[in-house]
Amino acid sequence: MSTTPASAEPARLGRLMAAEIAEQPAVLRRILKEGAPTIRQIAAAIAARNPQFVLLTARGTSDNAALYAKYLVEVLLGKPAGLTSMSTTTAYGAKPDLRDCLVVTVSQSGGSPDLVASTRAAREAGAITLAVTNNPYSPLAAVSEYHIDVLAGPEKALPATKTYTAQLLSLYLLVEGLRGGDGSAAKGLPELAASVLARGEEVRELAERYRFAQRLIITSRGYGYPTAREAALKLMETTYIPALPFSGADLLHGPLAMVDNTSPVIAVVPDGHGGEALQPALDRLRTRGADLAVIGQQDLVDAAPAGFALPSWVTEEVQPILEILPLQLLAYEITIARGQDPDTPRALAKVTETH
Amino acid sequence: MSTTPASAEPARLGRLMAAEIAEQPAVLRRILKEGAPTIRQIAAAIAARNPQFVLLTARGTSDNAALYAKYLVEVLLGKPAGLTSMSTTTAYGAKPDLRDCLVVTVSQSGGSPDLVASTRAAREAGAITLAVTNNPYSPLAAVSEYHIDVLAGPEKALPATKTYTAQLLSLYLLVEGLRGGDGSAAKGLPELAASVLARGEEVRELAERYRFAQRLIITSRGYGYPTAREAALKLMETTYIPALPFSGADLLHGPLAMVDNTSPVIAVVPDGHGGEALQPALDRLRTRGADLAVIGQQDLVDAAPAGFALPSWVTEEVQPILEILPLQLLAYEITIARGQDPDTPRALAKVTETH
Repeated sequence: MSTTPASAEPARLGRLMAAEIAEQPAVLRRILKEGAPTIRQIAAAIAARNPQFVLLTARGTSDNAALYAKYLVEVLLGKPAGLTSMSTTTAYGAKPDLRDCLVVTVSQSGGSPDLVASTRAAREAGAITLAVTNNPYSPLAAVSEYHIDVLAGPEKALPATKTYTAQLLSLYLLVEGLRGGDGSAAKGLPELAASVLARGEEVRELAERYRFAQRLIITSRGYGYPTAREAALKLMETTYIPALPFSGADLLHGPLAMVDNTSPVIAVVPDGHGGEALQPALDRLRTRGADLAVIGQQDLVDAAPAGFALPSWVTEEVQPILEILPLQLLAYEITIARGQDPDTPRALAKVTETH
Repeated sequence: MSTTPASAEPARLGRLMAAEIAEQPAVLRRILKEGAPTIRQIAAAIAARNPQFVLLTARGTSDNAALYAKYLVEVLLGKPAGLTSMSTTTAYGAKPDLRDCLVVTVSQSGGSPDLVASTRAAREAGAITLAVTNNPYSPLAAVSEYHIDVLAGPEKALPATKTYTAQLLSLYLLVEGLRGGDGSAAKGLPELAASVLARGEEVRELAERYRFAQRLIITSRGYGYPTAREAALKLMETTYIPALPFSGADLLHGPLAMVDNTSPVIAVVPDGHGGEALQPALDRLRTRGADLAVIGQQDLVDAAPAGFALPSWVTEEVQPILEILPLQLLAYEITIARGQDPDTPRALAKVTETH
């Protein structure tokens, strides 16, 4: 007879990560309902100042959200954009002239000292500064002229999941606001996200395929490329399997040599221009006998050895908010299958203090 | 008795790559002597038009040279800079307003259709366009307003080596010209490069260490980060070992979890601010029991289990031109040790036709 009280039961592995993955439809709904009006106001205020170009600053998962925003800025807003190399400010003391520049700093915690320092420097250099964080009381929010709260609620798991999709949606609404769009493409996302997350069993089967993988290659193009990068990061920090993200074009410039019939490849195929631009890489991968799993439309999944079908009829710009969901689940399931705890990746801390 | 004539002897593996690695001191000398005056003129003409920000466009090895230039532009020139996400133009038809913007397209061959298309689009959008190629008769040179020839001579090996260092030096001289500097920090590079390349035997020993590696992690910070990326690309396309490049700061944001005592790490430690900023990552790697090889100053190499010492007293901005040399040799030697031919990586073509 066990004398262990229920409250002292050993925690189920990955309980926190699973819970936060599951929260995402509710978080997306909250942003559309409660966050969107504020984001629209901030966007209007910034648009009135007519920034000529946009710099995005972030690290880790937030950097992948920033990359997504870079595509939005270039394509939807028609402004040049760049990702900051933060060390130029924090290590080398670079003082670029940032008048007419919008600097968007994306961070879950808003607490990393290098992000705070580089945002402060940008503001002093004349930039319009906007922080996008999950903590309105953070030092980063305080140092920035504008702040958008991504409203994801307290994040307790070490691998960021719900804050990533919350950042994506908030950044999408921001860019829509900057260009005077209505953001209506995002309307159905909470329900669609719920429908994807309800299919965890399919992902569990896919995870079996990769349980003993020595490495993974993840490729995409266009709006799907940030998804490939975020999926790789999530897989690395939870499963510890090296996961290499490549744009389909970059893959053809060298790394394709690594691919053989024992190198599984996951292709995130956007439904739209990004997917079309990815086709040459997919063709070459097939020729090389790569084991290809597709995250994309049903017909492409059916034609591949494995995959996960995404809802159809979703505007390409917001597809990344859905694409990452099965890949978050995949990272979770592979980690569980390998007997590790996704809630406590070795060597990680929640707020990473880089300088 | 063999009847094979001498001219039909089986070619030594990696003959082309070895020859082009060895050519680098001569190429650097040629750029300083014959290329520098033209680069200075072009830089002066562009500076007179006072671009407000700089976008860099490239793929593969050239993209790593472009990243190096981004650091130079931000730190030395004090202008904001970004790397282009090419698909926004070529796949999504983005038409950003690029007046006051300098667009630098870097390409070995100058023949890739997507680079030509995106540069043409940039010029139509009002940008000052500059191509940096190894072929003045290329479509990319033709479509650009300005052209810098990196003077590396015909490149026959598939893995780019001499064109990379030629791009780095040309881009350094360009940025020096843009800010009115004299580029004198580059003066001694040809001799220093020769002294590094003369120590191939040391690299051959280091290569033994990685012959059976399942993966490699390469980390650096600041000016050394492009070196880490280029080393990873070179290792992947020749040895087929997955090589993951991370800035030291990004490594701490997740991927550190992958590192254990069977995961070799190569750290490129710049002698200067970049090296200082890398220290926290190096400390964490040591704590995690990582097998660490250092490419950097002699005292750091002596304190690590393995490494390769670089010449001292070289200005940090131009160190990348020397740092990559032992890593090119390392890619070559590991490939030879594994019985593969670095001149003919499987699945690669010299001009990669991405669209």
